[in-house]
Amino acid sequence: MKIAFQGELGAFSEEAARAVFEQPDLQPQATFEDVFEAVTGRSVDRAVIPIENSVFGSVRLNYDLLRTTHDVQITRELQLRIRHHLLGMAGATMDAIEVVRSHPQALGQCRQFLRQRLPSARTDAVYDTAGAAREVADQGQSHVAAIASRAAADQYGLQVLQSEVEDDPENYTRFLVIARSPDGGPPAVVEEPMKTSVVFRLQENVPGALFKSLAVFALRELDLFKIESRPHVGQPGQYLFYLDVEGSAADEPVERALGHLDEITTELRVLGSYPQGETIE
Amino acid sequence: MKIAFQGELGAFSEEAARAVFEQPDLQPQATFEDVFEAVTGRSVDRAVIPIENSVFGSVRLNYDLLRTTHDVQITRELQLRIRHHLLGMAGATMDAIEVVRSHPQALGQCRQFLRQRLPSARTDAVYDTAGAAREVADQGQSHVAAIASRAAADQYGLQVLQSEVEDDPENYTRFLVIARSPDGGPPAVVEEPMKTSVVFRLQENVPGALFKSLAVFALRELDLFKIESRPHVGQPGQYLFYLDVEGSAADEPVERALGHLDEITTELRVLGSYPQGETIE
Repeated sequence: MKIAFQGELGAFSEEAARAVFEQPDLQPQATFEDVFEAVTGRSVDRAVIPIENSVFGSVRLNYDLLRTTHDVQITRELQLRIRHHLLGMAGATMDAIEVVRSHPQALGQCRQFLRQRLPSARTDAVYDTAGAAREVADQGQSHVAAIASRAAADQYGLQVLQSEVEDDPENYTRFLVIARSPDGGPPAVVEEPMKTSVVFRLQENVPGALFKSLAVFALRELDLFKIESRPHVGQPGQYLFYLDVEGSAADEPVERALGHLDEITTELRVLGSYPQGETIE
Repeated sequence: MKIAFQGELGAFSEEAARAVFEQPDLQPQATFEDVFEAVTGRSVDRAVIPIENSVFGSVRLNYDLLRTTHDVQITRELQLRIRHHLLGMAGATMDAIEVVRSHPQALGQCRQFLRQRLPSARTDAVYDTAGAAREVADQGQSHVAAIASRAAADQYGLQVLQSEVEDDPENYTRFLVIARSPDGGPPAVVEEPMKTSVVFRLQENVPGALFKSLAVFALRELDLFKIESRPHVGQPGQYLFYLDVEGSAADEPVERALGHLDEITTELRVLGSYPQGETIE
């Protein structure tokens, strides 16, 4: 299957794609807009996009693209533990490392490790973890290391000098698999626990509108996995809401709750029903 | 006043600090942890931190630091429109620009402009918009431009070749001003509309717990400005909630609602009451 993702080969999105698909034909794209265009234009079968990180929050740009690209739906999700490794040239040793290159967020997440194990190394901040690995490989300098994913080590032929160098292991990114709507098929009626993602806007000037919109689920004892408001900038009092609810839109209680929600909201859009995802440690 | 912020001089956080404080004594910090330490250790009077961007979502790291740093409180907020400008050396002209350097997100947000006005220029992605401006100034190359803030132009003595080059003006960041708790004083009882930020965790295995927690506000007709759930990774079914409600924690309806919320949640923490912020266009 042809799978699009944003970033360079070796990015964490590539790791996510490899966790979901066997032998994917990977199609790196420069931007998320390009990823969505690849799906709607059928130049790929599926795409893998990050939607939420445990440290940095929801990727609203991707929510916007899901909301406005009407012929795309979510077909799967997974949580990927973000693991950083110290990568160097074949034959390089920790003792010889003078420079550590990575994205500043990754350098920040490995600060204790760097302070304890490489106290005299200089850090070199670049815009992309996979790009840092590529540069180390291109320049072939054995005194420079990169902090990046294992996929980046494989992609650029680097050696893992030290694995899992992040200070706090509680760093996960939730990825979604998206498909063109007919290709993805209708919501599956299956035995595994499902989840449905929706986005909606509340009617204006209706007191307690948010509370009522959640009542459609609470009254049917449907659990919510996620709720997030997002102010509509420049339009005070206008909000978008993202919500994940248990069950498939093909199940009767969820179907009825969404029908009810449709009565009391504007711009309700069901983004997809899909199996509750596993966490890849 | 001594004001801490994360990043280099010329960062958007500096613009926010200058919008709030007259003649701030700016104290740039490498990380957000350093910013909080500067506030609690009294080496600064206030700090300015980004908490939410209209494109990239909430900065959960800063929510975590607010939640776990008990002697810090929010005293103000503001929304800053993120404006990108094309900056070059004094005397540089658009015609002569061959390279445009900036953070990849900024380059992405100015893609149409670059395609239309500088179709043959190469882009050079670096990790920081202010750093891109500094490099252009340091290297003194008149064929290289940076995309960065006006503060960066001022900081590094660059000329604005073209202002507001972003394709979509709907890019705002919400910043908070934080102070050490006694220094910030108790929640003001003032005439201006106030807002109170809280973070809490729901009791486990209580059906409809989220719905009940919102009822404490809905029953008192208190409007919510923000609600966001955040899964506790590795602990299925455990969530943190961020919530902004109208009014000051010193006002009776809010005080009662928070007392009620405290009965039905764990880890309730009031992050501060502060005037509903203005938007700086």
